[in-house]
Amino acid sequence: MSLLSRIRVVLVGTQHPGNIGSAARAMKTMGLSALVLVAPEAFPDPRADALAVGAVDLLQRARVCATLDEAVADCTRVAAATARPRHISAPVYTPREWVQRLAASEHAGQVALVFGRERTGLTNQEVDRAQELVAIPTGGEYTSLNLAAAVQILAYELLLASGASPLELPVHEPVDQVEMERFYTHLEAILVRTQFLDRTNPRLLMRRLRKLYGRAAPDANEMNILRGILTSVTDALERERKR
Amino acid sequence: MSLLSRIRVVLVGTQHPGNIGSAARAMKTMGLSALVLVAPEAFPDPRADALAVGAVDLLQRARVCATLDEAVADCTRVAAATARPRHISAPVYTPREWVQRLAASEHAGQVALVFGRERTGLTNQEVDRAQELVAIPTGGEYTSLNLAAAVQILAYELLLASGASPLELPVHEPVDQVEMERFYTHLEAILVRTQFLDRTNPRLLMRRLRKLYGRAAPDANEMNILRGILTSVTDALERERKR
Repeated sequence: MSLLSRIRVVLVGTQHPGNIGSAARAMKTMGLSALVLVAPEAFPDPRADALAVGAVDLLQRARVCATLDEAVADCTRVAAATARPRHISAPVYTPREWVQRLAASEHAGQVALVFGRERTGLTNQEVDRAQELVAIPTGGEYTSLNLAAAVQILAYELLLASGASPLELPVHEPVDQVEMERFYTHLEAILVRTQFLDRTNPRLLMRRLRKLYGRAAPDANEMNILRGILTSVTDALERERKR
Repeated sequence: MSLLSRIRVVLVGTQHPGNIGSAARAMKTMGLSALVLVAPEAFPDPRADALAVGAVDLLQRARVCATLDEAVADCTRVAAATARPRHISAPVYTPREWVQRLAASEHAGQVALVFGRERTGLTNQEVDRAQELVAIPTGGEYTSLNLAAAVQILAYELLLASGASPLELPVHEPVDQVEMERFYTHLEAILVRTQFLDRTNPRLLMRRLRKLYGRAAPDANEMNILRGILTSVTDALERERKR
């Protein structure tokens, strides 16, 4: 069973139904699908549907429980997202540490990831249900993440750790060094022709141009354009000569 | 200057003011503070303030511009968050790859991270202003992240990467976008002159050259060389004419 399919997002006592919808959308974009709501203040609710956008199916399949114990009863691992480290607490991990440990472990079975109320978080008793805590790093003095934003970050880290190859990214394939040398030879010849480069000069200019075009790392198509431009300069000079 | 303080989040044509507020909150929780809005549909707006919660100060200091060009004029690096890989495109990175490259690079100066409209994203012309694209991985068939959720993920990755900034590296300071636009105008004029570029042609060629030179990110010295080369072509053509 894949990592993502073993994750259950548990929202405890959510106050604003819009946040439930936004959390569902955050989950679905990252390939998570199991949502459990513990004593939500308003659910189902059209405001949840509106913010779920394309993830309304997650809301329709969401399980609603009266207590956290009920929500995690069949889970073999329970983690709670928390803003504050508690003085009596389970080990605290960053999201990245936590998902890496999870992905690397031999653990099977259902994993609950529990999020508390918008204002007041989880009670101490609820936190005690978790074997581990996940604290999202924050910067500066303002540390209050929106509930769905916290779900989004954890879901994103879970997706990355799940190894699911995410996007078919277009590949950039630079030409090889033989092609690059041909280009530099051509470029140098044109620069001598336009008198921008004096052959008696030190080689500083070509070194600088090598650094610049080396950084650009043209692909075959781009190299054709660059070589075409150089040839067009020669052609234009010939035309002027013949006028 | 720290990595986070050099990042400017640019929201283009945002339709729902609530998303501007949520994006500001996402930024502030991760230590980002510079927000620029390009032609927002409604701003300022009480719905933005309501969702910003403790980040209203970012909204108050937000700069509003008429165009993307104006928003990134003084930036030395422009990245666009995009859902779809384009068939002609700048290099595409995952958020993690992008922030790691950014943190490890010698690059200094302002970095713009551009987000498009909720429904329609960025136009091709706007995407062309970016030297690099950042695509957030998604799982499954539903790939439509909320705007503020996308900002949250990028801001989170930036915060994590900001811890490790190798300051002892020599600094590469690319010229800003105003200089780049001057170069493209000059280059296009020369290519018309050498007849490599037919003005009646589609703009495909210039778009490709923008990608190539955008990736190279020339510094002031390199830009002088490039502009000097272009001028030398004009001079050589004049000389041939007068022979």
